[in-house]
Amino acid sequence: MRNNRRSIKFHPIGYVENKFSKTSGWEQSEPGDSLIILNPELLSGLKGFLPEQRVMVLFYFDRIHDYDLQQHPRGDPSRPKRGVFTLRSPRRPNPIGLTEVEILAIEENVLRVRGLDAFNGTPVIDLKPA
Amino acid sequence: MRNNRRSIKFHPIGYVENKFSKTSGWEQSEPGDSLIILNPELLSGLKGFLPEQRVMVLFYFDRIHDYDLQQHPRGDPSRPKRGVFTLRSPRRPNPIGLTEVEILAIEENVLRVRGLDAFNGTPVIDLKPA
Repeated sequence: MRNNRRSIKFHPIGYVENKFSKTSGWEQSEPGDSLIILNPELLSGLKGFLPEQRVMVLFYFDRIHDYDLQQHPRGDPSRPKRGVFTLRSPRRPNPIGLTEVEILAIEENVLRVRGLDAFNGTPVIDLKPA
Repeated sequence: MRNNRRSIKFHPIGYVENKFSKTSGWEQSEPGDSLIILNPELLSGLKGFLPEQRVMVLFYFDRIHDYDLQQHPRGDPSRPKRGVFTLRSPRRPNPIGLTEVEILAIEENVLRVRGLDAFNGTPVIDLKPA
C-alpha cells in the first residue's frame, strides 16, 4: 500500500514585498502592484520572462494555521457552506495560494507584478508561465 | 531581516491512480483519464464540485530529485535554454505540478478526471476551482 502520509518539504524561492497587509489592506494609491524578490542564487531561472507576460505565482499562506473542510464562500454567512476544495479560501489543508499576475518589469532578481493578492512578506514557492 | 530559508511542510491530500508511468507512457486506450483518490477524512471538502467543472490540481513530482536553473524547452536540445520559471518542467526548485483538468465523475472520495499529466501514484497536494 502506498504511503500517502509522508510530509513534503519545500523551500521558499523568494518573497513578496508590497503595501498589503491583513490589518491595513492596500496602503498605496495603486493597488495590485507587488515586488517578488527572488533569492539571488536563483536569478538565472528567470531568463526568458518578458514584461507583459502573465505568470502563475504559487505562494505559502504563512499566516494561516488551521482550516475547515466546509466554509462559507468569501466568508459570507448568507451563502451556504461548500467544500474547501471548491473555494479559493486560504484556510485549506495545504495553505498554498495560486494567482495569475502580469509582469510589469524585471530588474535583476526583482519582478514587479500586478494582481498579486498576497500579503507583504509572503513566501513564494514557484513561478510558472500562465 | 526576514527569514526566507525556513522550510515549508505539506501533507498529501490524496494521490493519483492511472495507467501512466515514466517507462510505459499511457497504457490504456483512453489517455488522459485518471482517478484522484482523496484521503477519506477530507471527503466533505469536495461538497459543491460538479461533473464537467474544471479544477486546478496541484501535485508533487515525487520522482524528481534535482533541477537546473536553465533548461531546453521540452528537453529539446535544438531549442535554446531558458530559465526554469519560464517553463513547466518538473525539474524545478520546488517540484510542484499544476494542471487544469475536467471532472468526469465524483463518487465518494474518488474523482475521475480528464487531462491530468501526472504519473500513477503521484501525491496530490491541493485542488482549487479553475
